[in-house]
Amino acid sequence: MAEKITKRETDYSQWYLDIIKAADLAEHSDVKGCMIIKPYGFAIWEKMKDALDKRFKETGHSNAYFPLFIPKSYLSKEASHVEGFAKECAVVTHYRLKVDENGGGIVVDPKAKLEEELIVRPTSETIIWSSYKKWIQSYRDLPILINQWANVVRWEMRTRLFLRTTELLWQEGHTAHATKQEAIEETEKMLDVYAEFAEEFMAMPVVKGIKSENERFAGADETYCIEAMMQDGKALQAGTSHFLGQNFAKAFEVKFTDKAGKLDYVWATSWGVSTRLMGALIMTHSDDLGLVVPPKLAPIHVAVVPIFNNEEQLTQIKDKLSNLLADLRSKGLTVKFDDDDQKRPGWKFAEYEVKGVPVRIAVGLRDLENNQVEVARRDTQEKKSYSLDGLADNIVALLDDIQKNLFEKALKMRNDSIKKVDSYDEFKKRLESEGGFFAAHWDGTKETEEQIKTDTKATIRCIPLDAVEEEGTCMVTGKPSKRRVLIAKAY
Amino acid sequence: MAEKITKRETDYSQWYLDIIKAADLAEHSDVKGCMIIKPYGFAIWEKMKDALDKRFKETGHSNAYFPLFIPKSYLSKEASHVEGFAKECAVVTHYRLKVDENGGGIVVDPKAKLEEELIVRPTSETIIWSSYKKWIQSYRDLPILINQWANVVRWEMRTRLFLRTTELLWQEGHTAHATKQEAIEETEKMLDVYAEFAEEFMAMPVVKGIKSENERFAGADETYCIEAMMQDGKALQAGTSHFLGQNFAKAFEVKFTDKAGKLDYVWATSWGVSTRLMGALIMTHSDDLGLVVPPKLAPIHVAVVPIFNNEEQLTQIKDKLSNLLADLRSKGLTVKFDDDDQKRPGWKFAEYEVKGVPVRIAVGLRDLENNQVEVARRDTQEKKSYSLDGLADNIVALLDDIQKNLFEKALKMRNDSIKKVDSYDEFKKRLESEGGFFAAHWDGTKETEEQIKTDTKATIRCIPLDAVEEEGTCMVTGKPSKRRVLIAKAY
Repeated sequence: MAEKITKRETDYSQWYLDIIKAADLAEHSDVKGCMIIKPYGFAIWEKMKDALDKRFKETGHSNAYFPLFIPKSYLSKEASHVEGFAKECAVVTHYRLKVDENGGGIVVDPKAKLEEELIVRPTSETIIWSSYKKWIQSYRDLPILINQWANVVRWEMRTRLFLRTTELLWQEGHTAHATKQEAIEETEKMLDVYAEFAEEFMAMPVVKGIKSENERFAGADETYCIEAMMQDGKALQAGTSHFLGQNFAKAFEVKFTDKAGKLDYVWATSWGVSTRLMGALIMTHSDDLGLVVPPKLAPIHVAVVPIFNNEEQLTQIKDKLSNLLADLRSKGLTVKFDDDDQKRPGWKFAEYEVKGVPVRIAVGLRDLENNQVEVARRDTQEKKSYSLDGLADNIVALLDDIQKNLFEKALKMRNDSIKKVDSYDEFKKRLESEGGFFAAHWDGTKETEEQIKTDTKATIRCIPLDAVEEEGTCMVTGKPSKRRVLIAKAY
Repeated sequence: MAEKITKRETDYSQWYLDIIKAADLAEHSDVKGCMIIKPYGFAIWEKMKDALDKRFKETGHSNAYFPLFIPKSYLSKEASHVEGFAKECAVVTHYRLKVDENGGGIVVDPKAKLEEELIVRPTSETIIWSSYKKWIQSYRDLPILINQWANVVRWEMRTRLFLRTTELLWQEGHTAHATKQEAIEETEKMLDVYAEFAEEFMAMPVVKGIKSENERFAGADETYCIEAMMQDGKALQAGTSHFLGQNFAKAFEVKFTDKAGKLDYVWATSWGVSTRLMGALIMTHSDDLGLVVPPKLAPIHVAVVPIFNNEEQLTQIKDKLSNLLADLRSKGLTVKFDDDDQKRPGWKFAEYEVKGVPVRIAVGLRDLENNQVEVARRDTQEKKSYSLDGLADNIVALLDDIQKNLFEKALKMRNDSIKKVDSYDEFKKRLESEGGFFAAHWDGTKETEEQIKTDTKATIRCIPLDAVEEEGTCMVTGKPSKRRVLIAKAY
């Protein structure tokens, strides 16, 4: 606690790291690029998991578990997939250590070399489709709607806590369908689930869209995404849902007999979100005072800080508040009554502020005499006296209001960040000075996309699903374009 | 479905595998020793996880997440730990693949060799204690009560689904304490949590005990365990809780300042249960007809099979039952109403039987005219007519009864399997002919323990916590002994 937090305008990257440290969310481990998710950070991730898992099950999916390891040859089976994933990955080559005969401590036993190297999964399409091959014969075996919560490893050279780590936690849905149409519907349905989760739970507005070919998942026919805008004007891809066509079915020879008795390849989707969402959450709402957590994802909803000088006063306050605490808890809220006598109230206020606890109640004997408590909301820092009468209901309403307010604030920020530009010069200038999303016409070619990236480091984040059809000309080449795409620098 | 299940008395090992296949719980993957946990199996594991996780949190623990990889040198820091774990493990030596210039496909890039090899965690004491070192300075930082749900890898040569797999899912608790006493209390508390879970949720009676030195966890001062008895007379270690003393604190130099200002090493515990419990569950209750799942862990509590000849009849049955289904669901039960018109009722009955669904309701129009349904319980295969009046409450009571009955049946089997023996010859003979637990006197030496193992393949499963003090003589050496220990062949 009392960690100094760098101001956003001074050094945004440092602010981000300071928040993570001060709120005790995560830290680097001794293993390069791998993070330790600390209990408070993990509690937020668990809330995310629970909410998503519930929605996955409501939409007909089941969880399962596939191996951590993938035989090297599997990665090569889908041509573009291996391009995208085989490069930077952890390779298991041996299965035993031994004591060095020359006193060199513990060494790899050269006799225990694997015949075929195993890759620590960077994503599981290949190992899962090699199983689906055994599970699918007929249309009666379809659809398969499976999700898995797992760790994956991508050997990242430059890492940043939550946003880009060598090992990350995620969920990956892998579905198999009898028709193209059904697979596309699934892809879009899961994109909606992600968008709904982002907006309703994370209070983070997102743009639903489709990736350009360059930014597509390695092995997909189409990648759908949700894109969010961070406070520094950089975009963040918060989730992706891929229509995989018949690519993996062809790579793994997965055919089924349809109702008419005809053999065909199976249609596939995959979709995932990861601990990266933690980074998105932090950067959407937090301020220079610390973390801000939307009530629906808060590990602690209400922190109650009694103000007391001695044990007797504490007992009086406890007695008087016991009904309130029980009431709040019966409404499903997590309440922390902080009666630690080793720490002063001011210290506690700062602690709950930096951890982003949505509501803090301070209460002393005088308050109780007046039948009231002081309630502070984290989002606006507003403090107000509340009567003890009907307090639990009022706190529930306040939490709803905080959730809504956080979304509206983020939505305004996001909407303000979107600007139409028609000139490449204006785009380049404003990209540097303002950041944000730029809605611009693009001629649809890889070459132009790459030029924009080379010139500015910005990328086409997506072609929004709700893009209006309008005649225009590409801001770079002047060639015709039918709709605007969103361009931004991104995490 | 309609997979043939080998009878237990014909071939117990095959019966076990047949159950797993027929109930669609898991299967081998293409990666040696790694299993795929299929949706129905995973749903049972999720129920186990949820129940355990709740108890961990109720006892003050938080979840966190530590890296998958452990630097090789860390394993060596605790001397007996490396002995136990460094031998058979997956070693990551490289972090990149590349396209072979000589057309050999994708190969390991020799330039991407790690300076220090990484071990895929077989257990996380070392990586966690290297973090605790940074987190602990004073008694105020203690206790640390952390649990993690994770995958671990132990390179097993001979594997068996759920019971012994190269990759397994588990939870591992890792706690740090200021005093020896507190650490021992934690070790015992978590053993109690495991025992309570095993008996109340899995309906599997366990013996709480302490391991002999030979069977102790590598790095522990004392290993507590819960031991269960399977239907074939072999014991199964279902969970362990380790008092680690100051071993890991010393290995990683983790000291704290106590209240008096004195520096001391921190005291530690660790405790874990794994997907092995799935094997234990299967072998405790299942029969020659298929899986039997105790209601508290059942993914589906009640399967309702309507008997109909046409759409109209189905609609009538549905209408009539809609209140019942809503009632059952409002009581927290998972109900499957199986109106699939492609499968016959008999096929469905067999399917729910083999999957161990605790209660199956069959209902046709004639039943409804009589205001009744047919209810079959999986544990006893008993069928009975129940009135629709008050049916939901009666089903809840029936499920309670099934849960209790399964425990009592397993308890009787377990208790019957325990026999006192005083002669080594009698022990050896009955071990082969009857199996089970043998309560015998042992002189407490490693040598005798090893002799028993060499002679019979049986091991000392534990010294029961409730062992009665009694003077006796070791059945092998005749030396004095103060209490009986439990000896059995084990999984």
